[in-house]
Amino acid sequence: MSDARRYAALPSPFPMKRGGELHGARVAYETWGTLAPGRDNAVLILTGLSPSAHVAASPEDPSPGWWEAMVGPGKAIDTDRWFVICVNSLGSDKGSTCPASIDPATGMPYRLRFPELSLEDVAHAAHVVVDQLGIARLACLIGCSMGGMSALAYMLLHPGSVRAHISVDTAPQAQPFAIAIRSLQREAIRLDPNWNGGNYDIHGVPAADGSAPGAPGRYPDMGMSIARKLGVITYRSAMEWNGRFARIRLDPEQREEQPFGVEFQVESYLQGHAERFVRTFDPNCYLYLSRASDWFDIAEYGAGSVSAGLKRIHIERAMVIGVSTDILFPLEQQEQIADGLRQAGAEVQFVALDSPQGHDAFLVDIDNYSRAIGGFLGAL
Amino acid sequence: MSDARRYAALPSPFPMKRGGELHGARVAYETWGTLAPGRDNAVLILTGLSPSAHVAASPEDPSPGWWEAMVGPGKAIDTDRWFVICVNSLGSDKGSTCPASIDPATGMPYRLRFPELSLEDVAHAAHVVVDQLGIARLACLIGCSMGGMSALAYMLLHPGSVRAHISVDTAPQAQPFAIAIRSLQREAIRLDPNWNGGNYDIHGVPAADGSAPGAPGRYPDMGMSIARKLGVITYRSAMEWNGRFARIRLDPEQREEQPFGVEFQVESYLQGHAERFVRTFDPNCYLYLSRASDWFDIAEYGAGSVSAGLKRIHIERAMVIGVSTDILFPLEQQEQIADGLRQAGAEVQFVALDSPQGHDAFLVDIDNYSRAIGGFLGAL
Repeated sequence: MSDARRYAALPSPFPMKRGGELHGARVAYETWGTLAPGRDNAVLILTGLSPSAHVAASPEDPSPGWWEAMVGPGKAIDTDRWFVICVNSLGSDKGSTCPASIDPATGMPYRLRFPELSLEDVAHAAHVVVDQLGIARLACLIGCSMGGMSALAYMLLHPGSVRAHISVDTAPQAQPFAIAIRSLQREAIRLDPNWNGGNYDIHGVPAADGSAPGAPGRYPDMGMSIARKLGVITYRSAMEWNGRFARIRLDPEQREEQPFGVEFQVESYLQGHAERFVRTFDPNCYLYLSRASDWFDIAEYGAGSVSAGLKRIHIERAMVIGVSTDILFPLEQQEQIADGLRQAGAEVQFVALDSPQGHDAFLVDIDNYSRAIGGFLGAL
Repeated sequence: MSDARRYAALPSPFPMKRGGELHGARVAYETWGTLAPGRDNAVLILTGLSPSAHVAASPEDPSPGWWEAMVGPGKAIDTDRWFVICVNSLGSDKGSTCPASIDPATGMPYRLRFPELSLEDVAHAAHVVVDQLGIARLACLIGCSMGGMSALAYMLLHPGSVRAHISVDTAPQAQPFAIAIRSLQREAIRLDPNWNGGNYDIHGVPAADGSAPGAPGRYPDMGMSIARKLGVITYRSAMEWNGRFARIRLDPEQREEQPFGVEFQVESYLQGHAERFVRTFDPNCYLYLSRASDWFDIAEYGAGSVSAGLKRIHIERAMVIGVSTDILFPLEQQEQIADGLRQAGAEVQFVALDSPQGHDAFLVDIDNYSRAIGGFLGAL
């Protein structure tokens, strides 16, 4: 399989915000386009909870990326002009050091011995990549969903490192509804007997490092499936599904035989999403990144005030985008970011869309997001 | 323990809409107030998925009911004037025949041998109670949440049996978002190994009637807990929780010791709800009633059109209430009911509230619901 990933070694030890440190850690990233001689055309993309660094196809890895329609030559994030970097979050299992990685101290996967992860750690690790590429200041930092929170941390903790910012479907802090959803996703995984306190099979290697070693083949499919389905429910919107699925039923031969099995199209849609996800994302990584999202709160840097926290971010320009149908990161939270960055002195565009797709609109409503993002970047 | 329940025997056999029949079945109900000599002051309340028939305290059972603030002497549903009946839904384990009941054919609990349940069956069973009380026509039929859907079925299937109707936080059909939520709740129960195909301990009696008998003590606590928490998340609203919980954390000594354990107040709130529910509602009953809610669709009676279905309901007056913060039964669905009943010739009041409590507002925002319901009933 082709692979376009490069790796940046993090300083060792790499201290973590909430205590503990990593040794010999790294983060995976990919790049597109060419860094200008003045090193002033770099655009960094920070991702949501589950995507890899593969935001778009490249000669080294021609498979479509997770934002393929947005990033490429002549596209909204135009790789003919910009040197685009996408970093796999620290703590994610798509190439970066994470709970599924080998702990050099033991030669075994970290599992729950991985130190507590915060989005500030994710931001610091991304900054290391940029620094190692010799880029003192990003032309633009783009953060989507969880990556939007990491981006706020990045700008606040690395003053002067960012000229412009695009904030996509995100929030300045986790609100209780989002915490409740994520907490329940984690609980579904934690209560799965096959999660086994984090000691399940990793990449086919049976757990053998805990007091309760996992049996071969042990993996929390059930918990991951429930977590993913709940995720998809909150990433989309009721409005979209009314139009898309209504009350359409599967053909009788497509239905599940068991009692209370899948009968409606919407159930089958969720099932498909879960099946594609369950074995492709490490459950412990999911737990760590999910909790990091709950913990994030820009108000920590503003004596308890979101706007005071945002006021410590100094950039020239920003665009903040959100959709009215997002139940996980409601539009009011994007407006808070826009207001806060404006008060901090940035020239801010706030783009409120009515896309029916909910939180995931940035991945689906390419027309509107392209127009906004392309327009903003084009004017830089 | 005091008990105010009475029981109405259903005709035997009692045929079910989707096939099969019950033998020797009954439904539990309670009453308050006095039936007038003209038998023209009866108000029937149909409940949501989990409540019992105990809507309010009475001399026989002085414990507070689930709508205590709304039903009683001088209250909005004034038992000095009205003879109030509340029926425990067929299929619920609060006294009515349900999957946890003994199947007379086997002497063992039905479990999954209970026939498929629809809200039309729930409506028919409630109508038997009213009929046996000698009431030809209800002064008012009130349905809350799932009970609102049962009420639509009641009025459509028993023409002339209802004079006025109050529809509370409900829908004329299940939409895909609600189906997705309920499907996931059912999946959490079904995937719990202790659910065991429905063969868990019922009331301390080990499962012994299936091909895979349950071990003593076997009960799907995990699945029920996840299902209930997801329920509570969708019964309330993000707006309410922002004000109520914000990002307040538990005191360190209240937090759970285990990794990723409860840390925020909102998580503890959900935990409390789950603990109170898990062992007080039979899991198979939950599955049956949940699926019945998905299946309900008034459009079945209108050649695929909701408004044509509603047009077949002939009553004199109706009040339809909903809240803008309800994500499970969105306000547009109450408006659909109001419009449909109006087109059918009823005089209809549509009350759209901005209560922050979401779907559960009818249980919490007593001021606004009292004013609306009391005003409507007072003018009858």
